Amino acid sequence: MSELNRQLVLKERPTGMITERTTALVDAERPEIAEGQALVKVRYLSIDPTIRTWMDDAPGYLPPIGIDEVIRSGGAGEVVESRSSRYHVGDLVTGITGWQEYCVADEGLGAMAAAPPGIDLAVTMNVLGITGMTAYFGLLEVGAMTEGDVVVVSGAAGATGSSVGQIAQIKGASMVIGIAGGPEKCAQLTEELGFDAAIDYKSGQVSRQLHELAPRGIDLYFDNVGGEILDAALGNLAMHGRVVLCGAIAGYNDISGPAGPSNYLNLIIRRGRMEGFIILDYVGRWPEAQAEMAAWLEAGRLRHAEHIVEGLEKAPDALNLLFTGGNSGKVLVRLA
Amino acid sequence: MSELNRQLVLKERPTGMITERTTALVDAERPEIAEGQALVKVRYLSIDPTIRTWMDDAPGYLPPIGIDEVIRSGGAGEVVESRSSRYHVGDLVTGITGWQEYCVADEGLGAMAAAPPGIDLAVTMNVLGITGMTAYFGLLEVGAMTEGDVVVVSGAAGATGSSVGQIAQIKGASMVIGIAGGPEKCAQLTEELGFDAAIDYKSGQVSRQLHELAPRGIDLYFDNVGGEILDAALGNLAMHGRVVLCGAIAGYNDISGPAGPSNYLNLIIRRGRMEGFIILDYVGRWPEAQAEMAAWLEAGRLRHAEHIVEGLEKAPDALNLLFTGGNSGKVLVRLA
Repeated sequence: MSELNRQLVLKERPTGMITERTTALVDAERPEIAEGQALVKVRYLSIDPTIRTWMDDAPGYLPPIGIDEVIRSGGAGEVVESRSSRYHVGDLVTGITGWQEYCVADEGLGAMAAAPPGIDLAVTMNVLGITGMTAYFGLLEVGAMTEGDVVVVSGAAGATGSSVGQIAQIKGASMVIGIAGGPEKCAQLTEELGFDAAIDYKSGQVSRQLHELAPRGIDLYFDNVGGEILDAALGNLAMHGRVVLCGAIAGYNDISGPAGPSNYLNLIIRRGRMEGFIILDYVGRWPEAQAEMAAWLEAGRLRHAEHIVEGLEKAPDALNLLFTGGNSGKVLVRLA
Repeated sequence: MSELNRQLVLKERPTGMITERTTALVDAERPEIAEGQALVKVRYLSIDPTIRTWMDDAPGYLPPIGIDEVIRSGGAGEVVESRSSRYHVGDLVTGITGWQEYCVADEGLGAMAAAPPGIDLAVTMNVLGITGMTAYFGLLEVGAMTEGDVVVVSGAAGATGSSVGQIAQIKGASMVIGIAGGPEKCAQLTEELGFDAAIDYKSGQVSRQLHELAPRGIDLYFDNVGGEILDAALGNLAMHGRVVLCGAIAGYNDISGPAGPSNYLNLIIRRGRMEGFIILDYVGRWPEAQAEMAAWLEAGRLRHAEHIVEGLEKAPDALNLLFTGGNSGKVLVRLA
């Protein structure tokens, strides 16, 4: 083992998609751990759209990543040294690792959680991590989904979206419609993931298709993309319909900022509600959700896919995949 | 008494502000009443922004007004003939009258409510009618206002807005900020209606002023106008802030439809909620609210102003006042 720690640091704030000038690979010293800490060798990075928002110098739910700072990211790894009774060499842990080969786990704010035994670490990062938890709490808590709801989710072939649709089915939605880009993704939704219907937004006419599929309107729309698709869903809201704002990939790389949803006044006519959330607020309740999700996994009721990119240096490309739609499933970077 | 019933009917759907071509004054026959009905001589018309939306051929919470149909409108009047045990000649009643001299009250969907005794009919139309009820339920139920909230209301010198601000004070808001157009209206808010602060949107910089007045953010924003002011409020939302969508005067006359609020993504960052409502949904609970509001009126805790326009034929001009901001207080048309 070398005594180095390769890292990707922020060199330049991007003005659209990130480029090769956005980050730089640097060789840092491998951190020395203090009493109460452990050294973790990173195995996987969780590639989430929110990382792109942290690169902007704009107010957010966390401070922007500073220039020359390691790119903030979720991840998982293995404890390779420990001076804490909480961590043992060989433990698999998840948490905020950053885009680097080694990180430090402590017993305070920088603590990492034990990965559940018996589940592949990549699957844990997907279904039992930020992605799966976002789907679970967004749909059931923020969206207050109830049996019989007509549920629509955008970015449906993505990691969060595909879990949202499947959880909605398990919880008794009367109809689950996924919106995705391209015929292959749409076929996957209906043929493999059990969605009742899929709409290819690249074919246009999302609003008309929503109206045909759900003439009574949409009870719950889980928004992963923003933009015109959000507007189409707002325009088709059922009475007392709910819009869960999870993200707005369509706008993250847009220099001029996102367009506002001009159909928002339908919230008045339909007595609707549009609500945002940040999954970190629910951390205290993750265990209950993880237990339920793990049981569904074990029973084979929850399908999942991981899109694994090899090598730390490929993390920027992996992030861009989320915005070009080049992925199918949860994007992870596996470190050597 | 002539046997005629002068009415204003819709002749042409407006494409912006209504004009003299939008409506026409016609002489209809005074209606014959059947068993179970009463004839009501209309005394006041309630001029509400929503009337403008009913003139468009667009889906809404009620069907559009048809061409050659009487303009739909709230109002109040006096029973002048009755074939129903529910109505007695001389009773003062409120309900949907339309822009006409006489209307029919029945015992079903077209029933009218008895006006509370001892309160001027114009004040009833304002504080105990659609306007006051909208303020009450929008603020306390939809917005779930609690003691200590920083409350901001737009259209604050209008009938709904001025009630919202005063109810917020009575219910213990830590700060009540009104947004209105022009220095006179702003002075009225702080000097007469007890608002803590007022922002003149015509001076620009609404967002900056909101930030200065409420650096911790806005807990509850009651939106009467939409447009840029809604965006400014969204941009200054406190954690778990709520936006109550009551209307969007800024967009009602806009041919291209309203602009969407581009700051809506702040609902994610602030874990906020934006919700619309229609006051008619709360009709069953109006009595409890009317009792509380009437007690505040009696105790002198609720100030109100009526802007009375004389003559049925002036109703279109009265409606336009709402959009030009030429009114101060509840706009009513008094019939001869």
